[in-house]
Amino acid sequence: MTTTFESFDRMWAELEPIGRAPETGGYRRHAWTRTDHDLREWFAAQCAARGLDLVEDRAGNQWGWWGDPDTTPGVVIGSHLDSVPDGGAFDGPLGVVSALAALDALRAAGVEPAVPVGVVSFVDEEGARFGIACAGSRIITGALHADRARALTDGDGVSMAEAWRRAGRDPRTLGPDEEALRRVGHFVELHVEQGKALAVAPDGGDDLTDPTRAVAIGTDIWPHGRWRIDLPGEANHAGTTRMADRHDAMLGLATVVQSARSYAVALGCVATVGKVDVVPGGVNAIPSHVTAWLDARGEREEAVRAAVDAVAEEAGRFGAITAEESWTPTTTFDTGLVDRLHGILPDAPLLGTGAGHDAGILATHGVPSGMLFVRNPTGVSHSPSESASVADCHHGVMALTAVVTDLCTVQDAEPTGGNG
Amino acid sequence: MTTTFESFDRMWAELEPIGRAPETGGYRRHAWTRTDHDLREWFAAQCAARGLDLVEDRAGNQWGWWGDPDTTPGVVIGSHLDSVPDGGAFDGPLGVVSALAALDALRAAGVEPAVPVGVVSFVDEEGARFGIACAGSRIITGALHADRARALTDGDGVSMAEAWRRAGRDPRTLGPDEEALRRVGHFVELHVEQGKALAVAPDGGDDLTDPTRAVAIGTDIWPHGRWRIDLPGEANHAGTTRMADRHDAMLGLATVVQSARSYAVALGCVATVGKVDVVPGGVNAIPSHVTAWLDARGEREEAVRAAVDAVAEEAGRFGAITAEESWTPTTTFDTGLVDRLHGILPDAPLLGTGAGHDAGILATHGVPSGMLFVRNPTGVSHSPSESASVADCHHGVMALTAVVTDLCTVQDAEPTGGNG
Repeated sequence: MTTTFESFDRMWAELEPIGRAPETGGYRRHAWTRTDHDLREWFAAQCAARGLDLVEDRAGNQWGWWGDPDTTPGVVIGSHLDSVPDGGAFDGPLGVVSALAALDALRAAGVEPAVPVGVVSFVDEEGARFGIACAGSRIITGALHADRARALTDGDGVSMAEAWRRAGRDPRTLGPDEEALRRVGHFVELHVEQGKALAVAPDGGDDLTDPTRAVAIGTDIWPHGRWRIDLPGEANHAGTTRMADRHDAMLGLATVVQSARSYAVALGCVATVGKVDVVPGGVNAIPSHVTAWLDARGEREEAVRAAVDAVAEEAGRFGAITAEESWTPTTTFDTGLVDRLHGILPDAPLLGTGAGHDAGILATHGVPSGMLFVRNPTGVSHSPSESASVADCHHGVMALTAVVTDLCTVQDAEPTGGNG
Repeated sequence: MTTTFESFDRMWAELEPIGRAPETGGYRRHAWTRTDHDLREWFAAQCAARGLDLVEDRAGNQWGWWGDPDTTPGVVIGSHLDSVPDGGAFDGPLGVVSALAALDALRAAGVEPAVPVGVVSFVDEEGARFGIACAGSRIITGALHADRARALTDGDGVSMAEAWRRAGRDPRTLGPDEEALRRVGHFVELHVEQGKALAVAPDGGDDLTDPTRAVAIGTDIWPHGRWRIDLPGEANHAGTTRMADRHDAMLGLATVVQSARSYAVALGCVATVGKVDVVPGGVNAIPSHVTAWLDARGEREEAVRAAVDAVAEEAGRFGAITAEESWTPTTTFDTGLVDRLHGILPDAPLLGTGAGHDAGILATHGVPSGMLFVRNPTGVSHSPSESASVADCHHGVMALTAVVTDLCTVQDAEPTGGNG
C-alpha cells in the first residue's frame, strides 16, 4: 500500500491550507464561498487525473465515476469537504481523500470491478452557512424541499439561491435528483470518529495503538434535530431604562441555555446552544430580539423530544416561539450491508453515533448505506484540535479499500445481502 | 420663529433617509462608514450654506465657526449624528439640527454675538462600531489614548486606524487636541430625553402637552462604564460530546446575564448585556469562547462598582476574565452654567441622566458644559420607536436659541458665573 499511502498523504497536504484561518488554525469551508469553489476545483482535478467522469447532481454534489452507473448501479465511497466555522481538518475531508486513495489502491491491485465505482463529494454537509445540515443529500432526496432550500439565508441575509447565482449556478435547477440516486447501489462513508469510543479500551483506559480499534463500522445514527427559538424583547436605552421597565430578550436566552443543559442531563440526551443572534447588538442597547439555535440528539427519540419540548416551554414563558428547522429520526444503516462490512472487517467494533451524516440521509431514502469511523484520540471534533493519527488514517484507507474491493467484485442477487 | 422651524423641519427631512435600514426602520449610522461619510458631507454643506468656517479636530469632530475662536473662546452648541445599531432618529441628530436652527434664529433676530458661535458635530458618540462611547470627545481630551483608539477593532476585525485609512484619513494625526478645546468657552448640548421624566407629570400621569415640561436642564450624568467579559470554553461536536465532558462557554454567559440583572436590581442601579460574540458560532459546535459586554450605570458610584464586581466574581467561577473598557465617574455639570441656564429658562425642570454624552466628557475635562433635554413621550431610546413631538422639538430650538443668545451676548468676568 506504499503508493496508496503516498497518494493519501499528498492529497492531505494539498488540502491542508485551503480555507484555514491563520488566527485560529481552524477551517472555514462554507458552502458556495470562494473557498468552497477552490475545494470543488480540487476535487474535479482529482477526478480528471484518475480519468473519472465527473457529474454534478441537482444539489451540486460532485460524483466521479469509473464505469457507467446508468447501466448498473455502482459502489460509491466518499464524504464532504466543507466544515463548521473554525472546524477541524478531518471531519469530511478524511472520507473524500480516503475514498480517492482507496480507488488508487483498487487499481494498483489490478482489481477489475464488476460494477462501476464512484467517489462522491457532498456539498454543504455541515450547514454552517444556511443552517441546514446535510443540505446536499437532503436536496437530492427531497428531504429538503427545493423552494425552502433556495429561500434559506446566511448570516448576511444572502439566500442560497443568490449564493448559487454568485457561484455562477442557476438556482432553478436545484431540486430532487432520482437519477443521481439510482446510480448508487451501495454507499459507504468513511468519517473521523467524533467521540472517544475507539480511543477508550474495553477496560476504560486509553487505547490509541491497538490496530483492531483503528476503524469501526457504523450501525445507526441517533435521532437529531435543530430548533430555532425566537425570543422577543423591547429595544431601549441601557442607561436610562429602569430594570423594572425592561423587556430584555437576553434574559430569555439565559433560561434557554440553562434549561437545555438541565433537561438534556436529566433525560440522558445532549443539547447545545451554539449559535445566537442578538438584535440590535449594541453595548448600550437592551436587546429587542434574540434568536438561539438549539441542537438536540440522543439514543432515544422520546428523550430528545421531551427535552426540546421542555426547553420550548421554558422559552415560551418569555414569549418565545420555537420552530423545528430539521428533524431526523433514528437512522439504522442497512443491516445486510452492516453484516457484510463486518464480514470484511471482522475485528472492527460496531458503533452508533450522535452525529448526522449524508450516509444517514441516503439510508433513510432507501439507498443501502453504511459508515466506517476512524479512531479519534481526543474525541474532539468541530474544533481545530480535531485529529487522527497518520497510522489510523492509513488503517482507514486499507479498510475502505477492502470494502470497496469486495462490494465491486462480489455480487449478490440481493444488493444488500449479508454473505460478506 | 416661523423661518427657524422651517429650517429645522427641512434639515430633519434631509437627514431622515440617511442610514435608515428599510427592514427595521432603525438607523445604522456607524463611525467612518459610507453612511457616516454622507452625514459628514451633509454637515459640511450646512456649514458652508451658512458661511461658517469648518474645522476638523484631531479626532475628526466637525466644528462650524461663526467668528474667530482663536481670538476669544466661543459658545458652542451641537451633538452627534451617529447612531447605535438600529437606533432612533433623535438621539444625536436632534441636537445638531436644533443647533443649526438656533444659529439661523439668532441671525434672523439680528443678534450680534460678542464672542464666536460654533456648531459641533461629534464623531462616534455611540461607540457602536469600536465599542467605546464618546470616542470623538474622549480622543481630543485625551481620555481615550490615541494608541488605544487606533488599535480598537470592529466586529469584522477592522481597526480604527484602518477605518480612518479607508475613509481617506491619516490615523497618525489622531490624538488629543487642546487647541480645539481652548476655543470652547461654553458648550451646550441639546438631546432627546432617554427616559420618561418629562413625560410624567408630578402627579404621576402622562403629561405630553405642558410646554413648561417640553425641555429640561441637565444637572449631572450618572457614573457609567463598560466591561468586556471573556468566557472560555472548549470547542467540540454538539452531537457526540457527553454533557459531562463539556466545557461550554455559553453556560457562563447565561450566568452573567442573570447575575447582571439580579445585582442591578438588588443594588438599585442598571446593568445590561446587549452585545455578545460566540465562537465558533455553529449550530452544531459547542462554544469555545463567548465574549459578553456589560454596561452598568446608576446614581451611586459604589452601587455600580459593587454590581459589576459581583457579576465579575460569578463569571470568574467559569474562568472568565472581566476587563474594564471604559469608566466615567459622576459628571456634575458646571454649576455656574446650570444656574445661568436656569435663569434663562426658569420653568425648565432640572434632570440627571443615566446616559453618557460628549458634554459630560468635555465637562470632566474642565470645559464649562451643560445640557438641555427634550421630552420623549415613551421614554424609549436606542430603538426605531424613539420619538419626540414636532412641537417639543420646536420648543427645544427656542430654548437653545434663548441660551445661545444669552451666552454669546451677556459676558461675565467669570466665564461660568451664575448671573443669568
